[in-house]
Amino acid sequence: MARHYLDHASTTPLRPESRAAMAAWEALGVTADPGRVHTEGRMVRAALEDARDQVATLFGVRPRQVVLTSGATESVNAAVWGVVADGSSGSDGPPAPVACAAVEHAAVREASARRGAVVPIEVDGVGRIHPDAVADAVDRSGAEHGRVPALVHCQAANHEVGTEQDVAAVIERCHELGIPVHVDAAAAAGHVVVDVEASGADLVSVSSHKLGGPAGVGALLLRRGLRIDPFIVGGEQERGRRAGLEHVAGAIGFGAAASALTEPGRLADESAAARRHTERLLAAAQAVDGVVAYGDTVRRVPHIVCLGVAGVEAEPVLLGLDQSGVAVHSGSSCSSESLEPSPVLLAMGVDGERSLRLSVGWSTSDDDVDAFTRAFAPVVGRLRDLAG
Amino acid sequence: MARHYLDHASTTPLRPESRAAMAAWEALGVTADPGRVHTEGRMVRAALEDARDQVATLFGVRPRQVVLTSGATESVNAAVWGVVADGSSGSDGPPAPVACAAVEHAAVREASARRGAVVPIEVDGVGRIHPDAVADAVDRSGAEHGRVPALVHCQAANHEVGTEQDVAAVIERCHELGIPVHVDAAAAAGHVVVDVEASGADLVSVSSHKLGGPAGVGALLLRRGLRIDPFIVGGEQERGRRAGLEHVAGAIGFGAAASALTEPGRLADESAAARRHTERLLAAAQAVDGVVAYGDTVRRVPHIVCLGVAGVEAEPVLLGLDQSGVAVHSGSSCSSESLEPSPVLLAMGVDGERSLRLSVGWSTSDDDVDAFTRAFAPVVGRLRDLAG
Repeated sequence: MARHYLDHASTTPLRPESRAAMAAWEALGVTADPGRVHTEGRMVRAALEDARDQVATLFGVRPRQVVLTSGATESVNAAVWGVVADGSSGSDGPPAPVACAAVEHAAVREASARRGAVVPIEVDGVGRIHPDAVADAVDRSGAEHGRVPALVHCQAANHEVGTEQDVAAVIERCHELGIPVHVDAAAAAGHVVVDVEASGADLVSVSSHKLGGPAGVGALLLRRGLRIDPFIVGGEQERGRRAGLEHVAGAIGFGAAASALTEPGRLADESAAARRHTERLLAAAQAVDGVVAYGDTVRRVPHIVCLGVAGVEAEPVLLGLDQSGVAVHSGSSCSSESLEPSPVLLAMGVDGERSLRLSVGWSTSDDDVDAFTRAFAPVVGRLRDLAG
Repeated sequence: MARHYLDHASTTPLRPESRAAMAAWEALGVTADPGRVHTEGRMVRAALEDARDQVATLFGVRPRQVVLTSGATESVNAAVWGVVADGSSGSDGPPAPVACAAVEHAAVREASARRGAVVPIEVDGVGRIHPDAVADAVDRSGAEHGRVPALVHCQAANHEVGTEQDVAAVIERCHELGIPVHVDAAAAAGHVVVDVEASGADLVSVSSHKLGGPAGVGALLLRRGLRIDPFIVGGEQERGRRAGLEHVAGAIGFGAAASALTEPGRLADESAAARRHTERLLAAAQAVDGVVAYGDTVRRVPHIVCLGVAGVEAEPVLLGLDQSGVAVHSGSSCSSESLEPSPVLLAMGVDGERSLRLSVGWSTSDDDVDAFTRAFAPVVGRLRDLAG
């Protein structure tokens, strides 16, 4: 049976450009630590720096503002670690507060909770963070902890419902208050423009595998001049900001994907195609009674839509679709092992524990959308019949 | 000009078995988050768990004792983080002491210093840690910090001079004292037998790229039943012990390299070949006046030897050899940018700031050794002439 993968927001296939760049590098047959001064080391260094340039170009920063990591989860951990001083090691007083909305990815929430007291930022019914809600959180931080947050998080777009955040407005308000902002752009990067310099963000986390590069690599992008303590210590790699031998082949694949997305018109074209596909998915789903869309269906990243299906659990719908050849995702958890209600839906005040997320990518075809359209109503119908 | 790479201890080329396994996986064309319940997710999960089995088999542990990481540096950071409670977050008193020799890799030293007070363990003139020196450090920890160390580090073999440590004896002594032991086996794994269960080690860090797998992946191996706090947080991957999408292609390559090394006779054969090559390198080097070998030239990992050259700096020798087509490494630093004296040599009481490290691997040929043999004496001779 033909398969139709509609879970690109979890991870998207490797782009041909990344595959070709990694294969060409592999065919060159040069292996070395890029920190070494011998010829092999300098060749590897040059390839690594070319890849860094490509990543920097996509995100509107200089190469030295790019810290390569093992992925967005590490980037997020490193962002919080690097900015928020903990309560130990001689600093005065308790851990610094961090302001964070419940719609942020678990990596953002958990990395913050480990490092400091988390001050919640309220969101509206589509999961959007308003600058006023951030200002409220800053006030509460003052009242409850005696100081403003050391860091405010504002995701670029929500990973579960797709809602785009007012990142520029949040950053502007935070900077008026003298507070740095970390932007988790893992769900948005490669699907909409993420321009770090233009946004004014202090730290931005991005992933390679969510934009068509390989897994095992990502980046933490830093505001020009921002210096941070390394999270992974024990080597001078990445200008002393991330220890450990660089994942050079991964960086080359990441760079090639970034470079493809920098081609004139490419991002806009892919974005338009993704919106067309997800509009069709939404229309097909909402043609079934009792199906609602979560999040902002207009001001959203183009490749993600999120559904609630009245009368049935999301998981059996997912499994029914899977049997029909269509792969989608249920909920926002980072692991199938988690059965907790979605914190994103909870924060939005949605009556429902789990959602059905459909997401498309660079390789999605009309066929994939058609397959969902054919399968969805019968699967939901059968489950509702079973439920009586 | 033909190149002769004698820096395998920095990183060694990808084994054909790893390349083939990764290419086969790539050709299958399945992309998914292995945490997802759809068909694609379950296929990727199965491939990941097969790779984990292969890694587990090489190191004598069960698959659930393997925590996949982005590399040995992250593994080391995670080991210290997971075992050593810090002084903040409500625990009582100052940070726990950690006992660590100066010959340990920078990752071990720096991850420990961040988390607690480091109690030094003395080493002998070849860089070996004696069980009595560990007991002395434990006594000093009691005297200076009022308690025994929360963790003792004992590398399997030194990364700069190659000296094998008495890991079993150190672990036995530590366990008598009720102290867990972390073994940094990055330099040893894949070159000598590293059997975690047999050694009794509590935590063992290993790297993929140093044994012929790809870069960007490694493992932290845990004693059966040991539970640790995750270092990278924000997802339930790796049984809640390491968050972030798994580097599946990397794990498959790592698994294939591990599997190759598990073939009957393979590790022993490669080890014998490496010793033959390094014995020849040592002999050729020591045929030149004023060349000494650092570390234990007998009880060492087979693929590493380390030299001091009287009257000249190591760096120009390295560059001279490089011009002759031979790539070697100078010092132990994790980056060419570091110009500090080697802490390994300092701890051994050696009179010399930097060493010349020669290291071989699975792809080393007699030709590579011959090239060094031809080039070394003329390079040293020219430099000594210049120095007058």
